[in-house]
Amino acid sequence: MTDVLAPGSVIGILGGGQLGRMLSVAAARLGYRTHILEPGANPPAADVAHAVTIAPYEDSAALEAFARSVDIVTYEFENIPTSALDLLEAYLPIHPNRRALSVSQDRLIEKSFLRDSGLATAPYAAVDDAVDLAEAIAEIGTPAILKTRRLGYDGKGQARLNAPGDADIALAAMGDNPAILEGFVEFSHEVSVIAARGLSGEVAAFDPGENVHEGGILRTTIVPARLTEAQRTDAILLAGKILNALQYVGVMGVELFVTAKGLIVNEIAPRVHNSGHWTQNGCAVDQFEQHIRAIAGWPLGDGSRHSDVLMENLIGDDIGRIPYIAQEANAAIHLYGKAEARPGRKMGHVNRITGRA
Amino acid sequence: MTDVLAPGSVIGILGGGQLGRMLSVAAARLGYRTHILEPGANPPAADVAHAVTIAPYEDSAALEAFARSVDIVTYEFENIPTSALDLLEAYLPIHPNRRALSVSQDRLIEKSFLRDSGLATAPYAAVDDAVDLAEAIAEIGTPAILKTRRLGYDGKGQARLNAPGDADIALAAMGDNPAILEGFVEFSHEVSVIAARGLSGEVAAFDPGENVHEGGILRTTIVPARLTEAQRTDAILLAGKILNALQYVGVMGVELFVTAKGLIVNEIAPRVHNSGHWTQNGCAVDQFEQHIRAIAGWPLGDGSRHSDVLMENLIGDDIGRIPYIAQEANAAIHLYGKAEARPGRKMGHVNRITGRA
Repeated sequence: MTDVLAPGSVIGILGGGQLGRMLSVAAARLGYRTHILEPGANPPAADVAHAVTIAPYEDSAALEAFARSVDIVTYEFENIPTSALDLLEAYLPIHPNRRALSVSQDRLIEKSFLRDSGLATAPYAAVDDAVDLAEAIAEIGTPAILKTRRLGYDGKGQARLNAPGDADIALAAMGDNPAILEGFVEFSHEVSVIAARGLSGEVAAFDPGENVHEGGILRTTIVPARLTEAQRTDAILLAGKILNALQYVGVMGVELFVTAKGLIVNEIAPRVHNSGHWTQNGCAVDQFEQHIRAIAGWPLGDGSRHSDVLMENLIGDDIGRIPYIAQEANAAIHLYGKAEARPGRKMGHVNRITGRA
Repeated sequence: MTDVLAPGSVIGILGGGQLGRMLSVAAARLGYRTHILEPGANPPAADVAHAVTIAPYEDSAALEAFARSVDIVTYEFENIPTSALDLLEAYLPIHPNRRALSVSQDRLIEKSFLRDSGLATAPYAAVDDAVDLAEAIAEIGTPAILKTRRLGYDGKGQARLNAPGDADIALAAMGDNPAILEGFVEFSHEVSVIAARGLSGEVAAFDPGENVHEGGILRTTIVPARLTEAQRTDAILLAGKILNALQYVGVMGVELFVTAKGLIVNEIAPRVHNSGHWTQNGCAVDQFEQHIRAIAGWPLGDGSRHSDVLMENLIGDDIGRIPYIAQEANAAIHLYGKAEARPGRKMGHVNRITGRA
């Protein structure tokens, strides 16, 4: 453990949502303190952080004070303004690195990177205007899905084209943002690999989980996923290829479609991932601790799983089911401390231990 | 879930050590915030608490401000001055209750309570002076152990008498504090039961763990403990009897000696207990969450165990072994964020998942 972040060091986390909250707890478990930087009021991570700064990413004085108070910087979401990253990087290392961020912030760059790395993706084409879109439809066909290149998550910034005639409406839904048209992939199910790469280049992966979405939002992850041994190996090798290509340090979520022709990469997230929450109750070292280990220079957990888990997100009014879930045996509840249960808002999750691995 | 503490409520915790730290994380997981009150600087719990007050228990202004800022009060250690409890109870309920505290704060009252509840204890006698001690030795014999009635923990405030001639030295070791002489019990091993009682009177227990001490400090807890089915049932019934007799709300640790004549109660602790740390990686609901559930009016976890665990305390320089432990598979590390590794100081623990339950 050379170059290990010293005990008691402060890890700066950009973003104070539930991922920052769970990263903060994991950091404490390894003897570190956290300082959260978050623009929004009452961030969930504030309940379990050593220090919190509420400031917009454009507040350079706040960013500088933050940078001076921490020993290393990481983040819980990928859409951090470039100017903020530039300022922070003048002071400190940021893990995962800028390349990982720039790749994952833009769907077009992401797809090109994946193709260049020899990985399969859905057919795609860049769409900046109506002419581009007509050409893209001619090439890819319909049904297809038009997505903004940047700032999309949980199904936002997307429009489906069932036929070429939907082009105008779909394009209007993008506002004036550059977009990408993606062809539909015939897949039987979606899985994700939560993988990590350490400062030393060591790579480890958790068992792939099988994801079910509703309305563009992750609903459940089941581990183990339905995969053949060959597919499981492919999934993990593929994730390792991405991590190494990016010289990545930290945890990454890689979403994959399982098709008759093999695994297709849907998207990558340069951070801990909702589909890895099951690891909290299925592994000795969960994805949050794995991320802290990676960026702090610790040996990685080996990803071994002691239990089978069904993770269910508690979205919006689902939170009202807590009194019943609390009476279940083997149900581990994780709430995010959000005051208001709006539709589509992730309020917590429950990890049901369904068996022994 | 009637009378359930509302989401977002603030739980006041007296004491900011590692137990308060782990209680704070568990409270957050259930959607609560914590406010820690602790006399010492840099309390471990501060890294993961919503609010922290550093003030002595004699600072009534600080106590009042604390009481006004929280919705309920609990504690992580039993030696809270009576005056502080009086002041706080004028504002708020304290769980576990005062009776549990008064019983466990004084070894003589504790032993009397246990005997009155029909439970077996070591032979004992009150010792206020040399005359008492001579009579106690005559009654109980040697070897025996003289302990201060109050404020003893981790082997402190104790003196062993190998022969009646050790009386003067042992008595001197007590200072002028009232003491209790305890006869030695022939036991094969020590186990403990971590049990909980909820606001509704519901009782639940985790599987008993088997404890090994070194120098008066807990070294390891192994689950499952070596017990017959009858002993296991006895241990749990006995813990339930204590909880009900005290109208207790919260988690309690009950230490038991396993003897040829049955189980003998060594001592009770009215709080989460070091010998229950294994539950963090062996159960869906651990002892810290169980305590928060109990005092917040939630249904209790049923105590079921998914994995066998060996918990090892990391004491003093043990912390230097972390680089090696971090490379083990199935080892879950829990550090307390203490800056200085003094001899005898609990710096963290590791839960090794040793098998499937």
